[in-house]
Amino acid sequence: MKNAIFPGSFDPITRGHENIVWRAASLFDMVYLCLGMNANKNCLFSLESRLAWLEAVAQQFDNVLAITYEGLTVDLCEKVEAKYIIRGIRNEGDFRYENDIAQTNKLLNPSIETVFWATAPEFSHLSSSIVRDIYKNNGNYKQFLPDIIDE
Amino acid sequence: MKNAIFPGSFDPITRGHENIVWRAASLFDMVYLCLGMNANKNCLFSLESRLAWLEAVAQQFDNVLAITYEGLTVDLCEKVEAKYIIRGIRNEGDFRYENDIAQTNKLLNPSIETVFWATAPEFSHLSSSIVRDIYKNNGNYKQFLPDIIDE
Amino acid sequence: MKNAIFPGSFDPITRGHENIVWRAASLFDMVYLCLGMNANKNCLFSLESRLAWLEAVAQQFDNVLAITYEGLTVDLCEKVEAKYIIRGIRNEGDFRYENDIAQTNKLLNPSIETVFWATAPEFSHLSSSIVRDIYKNNGNYKQFLPDIIDE
Amino acid sequence: MKNAIFPGSFDPITRGHENIVWRAASLFDMVYLCLGMNANKNCLFSLESRLAWLEAVAQQFDNVLAITYEGLTVDLCEKVEAKYIIRGIRNEGDFRYENDIAQTNKLLNPSIETVFWATAPEFSHLSSSIVRDIYKNNGNYKQFLPDIIDE
Amino acid sequence: MKNAIFPGSFDPITRGHENIVWRAASLFDMVYLCLGMNANKNCLFSLESRLAWLEAVAQQFDNVLAITYEGLTVDLCEKVEAKYIIRGIRNEGDFRYENDIAQTNKLLNPSIETVFWATAPEFSHLSSSIVRDIYKNNGNYKQFLPDIIDE
Amino acid sequence: MKNAIFPGSFDPITRGHENIVWRAASLFDMVYLCLGMNANKNCLFSLESRLAWLEAVAQQFDNVLAITYEGLTVDLCEKVEAKYIIRGIRNEGDFRYENDIAQTNKLLNPSIETVFWATAPEFSHLSSSIVRDIYKNNGNYKQFLPDIIDE
Repeated sequence: MKNAIFPGSFDPITRGHENIVWRAASLFDMVYLCLGMNANKNCLFSLESRLAWLEAVAQQFDNVLAITYEGLTVDLCEKVEAKYIIRGIRNEGDFRYENDIAQTNKLLNPSIETVFWATAPEFSHLSSSIVRDIYKNNGNYKQFLPDIIDE
Repeated sequence: MKNAIFPGSFDPITRGHENIVWRAASLFDMVYLCLGMNANKNCLFSLESRLAWLEAVAQQFDNVLAITYEGLTVDLCEKVEAKYIIRGIRNEGDFRYENDIAQTNKLLNPSIETVFWATAPEFSHLSSSIVRDIYKNNGNYKQFLPDIIDE
Repeated sequence: MKNAIFPGSFDPITRGHENIVWRAASLFDMVYLCLGMNANKNCLFSLESRLAWLEAVAQQFDNVLAITYEGLTVDLCEKVEAKYIIRGIRNEGDFRYENDIAQTNKLLNPSIETVFWATAPEFSHLSSSIVRDIYKNNGNYKQFLPDIIDE
Repeated sequence: MKNAIFPGSFDPITRGHENIVWRAASLFDMVYLCLGMNANKNCLFSLESRLAWLEAVAQQFDNVLAITYEGLTVDLCEKVEAKYIIRGIRNEGDFRYENDIAQTNKLLNPSIETVFWATAPEFSHLSSSIVRDIYKNNGNYKQFLPDIIDE
Repeated sequence: MKNAIFPGSFDPITRGHENIVWRAASLFDMVYLCLGMNANKNCLFSLESRLAWLEAVAQQFDNVLAITYEGLTVDLCEKVEAKYIIRGIRNEGDFRYENDIAQTNKLLNPSIETVFWATAPEFSHLSSSIVRDIYKNNGNYKQFLPDIIDE
Repeated sequence: MKNAIFPGSFDPITRGHENIVWRAASLFDMVYLCLGMNANKNCLFSLESRLAWLEAVAQQFDNVLAITYEGLTVDLCEKVEAKYIIRGIRNEGDFRYENDIAQTNKLLNPSIETVFWATAPEFSHLSSSIVRDIYKNNGNYKQFLPDIIDE
């Protein structure tokens, strides 16, 4: 069994994230879509909304499961028996940021590998942060969320 | 009429910003220097000061007007009948950040174009954030503001 | 009259370049699409083909003209009475490369401004160099050239 | 069967490349280590040496095979029935370069995915180009090649 | 006397910082390890802990002294008669950030030079921010602090 | 004695290079300005010209000496008893390129340190490559060379 986790705060999950889930689901046996409940991070959308959106995305696949977690990402890997962490990369700054975390996770647990996918070009300028800005300014933010989320 | 907006929080406006205004004013028919009043952003300088500084800069030109705004940048464009958004780029990180916003604005309103100018080398290391740091540490921050601001 | 030049070796011109021409043509009074005939640069496609392709693109617009040139870009600007140089930027590396040239041109002739546009996301991974590689390997490179080029 | 290719000119293969092969071999069913025979590229090391080194690396694994190829990478994928292309990323510049190629390959054949791994920190400053420089200057370049290569 | 300062918030000091101190101590006559007490910055670790850790690191050297400071970095330089500011650079983003500050410091005081060292590869993914994250999630953060700190 | 080398092909030496020499000369006891005679690199300017220009720059200082060299940079360090290699960094791409070489040199000889200085903003867009382009196009390239070179 080759399992992978895709961790994040998903505030909110975007079409870009969903694009990565599609790819991961076809390579790995099981993909855990993992909502980090970091007490120190102020999220704009409620935990309930964010988790409901993750579950809506997950239900499109046979082998994707939405879960919540606390603590270190490498500990989560052990718990769900996943050897791979999945990260989507939109640009060079993303690579730098994610690579620092990936290399540190490797030190914390050498058996964990991080696999990077480049986001598709049409989503490469989309970020949760930009979606939040549009939401705060009463713009049409729904167009940037996965189609399955239509509430 | 080819109008453009130059939006920002200008906390404070710097010589680098003014450098971009000079270039924009010679290409466009009308340039709106737009102070965003984002309730969620904590600015160091007061709204009054920031707006007064923008007006001082604008008064050096026949075709530059300082205004305030709320809401989405693309909605502001429609309101003032501007098809162009102006952004100054100091370095590669600026380009990545501004390009993400520009591409999203294009999705929100395909008729809006963002035009980038590279900041002149002598101002390319100057940012509002660095000026605020100097101010907080009682340093001579005035040298980084436009000459016209001498109060 | 606000004229601009868009210089390059266009080996070959791509959909990405054409995307920039559309934007420039709507802002400037006249846009010169300028094929540099640098004797020191080995091009894959013949001068005839490259120029014919530029002309095909130019003929779609009332105010775009394809020309050839030798020598410094700033001298070309003087010759055609253009105050603006247009460059398309695909990513951070492009910005660094083009900005170095833009700042040097500014030193050579302070009255010349370079205006940058970000390439549309669907073309942001496309370069003449990648098209040449596909051509050399007998791949379908035509899909990356402007539609108007169908020979 | 989930197969992957790891294409390159490997002039020469380095410890950094081998580091990526180890990771790929544990995720994919079959990994093809593919030596591109691009007639237009001048390599420093002979085809014989480069292929022999690839074979030495491949023989350490049950599921890695060294092969040569010509033509487009996506055509090679079809031929060996591989859906995945593997690329090692050392830094931000690598990501930009490889992502441009990956997105173009996706256009040429939408069923092909590129998977990126970050090179381990101890190899992240190592490149074939730097190894060639050391070789040309009579330095100890062997320390940068995989241990298995000891001739 | 060629003196240098190495300023920071050191929240906490890491093996990466210590790596830079070793190099600086062998080039300069005196190195001041300077803990900035910026009232506006919320640190995770207490001032007492951070200063104690700096002192532990400093005591390994004959010519390194741990001090605290407030105000502008260039004013600190004058006070301790140091002409050089030392900064460790882990990656391209670090260089951009630090270079902006260095060039501004040069404007504030033209006699001050900033010297950059690249962090050793094994520490180039390590940052105080990542260490804080591991600490908050109850991970083994001590492995990322200098060996001398074992409390 | 703290000696340093500043190696390069200097084709040609620019005001940017000279800017770095000034800083290095005030920190180190002796600075060797080292012209690499790499047989594989085609230079535009003759060896005689390049060396004469280096000597002109060196003669402005008591402790700078222009020399030529072949072979590995770290071997040159041993020969002239220099523990430091000096590199000027203009931007993020420069840092990536130079850091790869610096880290490799550290592996070849762990006692050698590379010290980076950021180029002054007014020279940060200047490169030997751009100067060569201006020269080839009969532009005024002399303005980008050190003042001392007036032939």
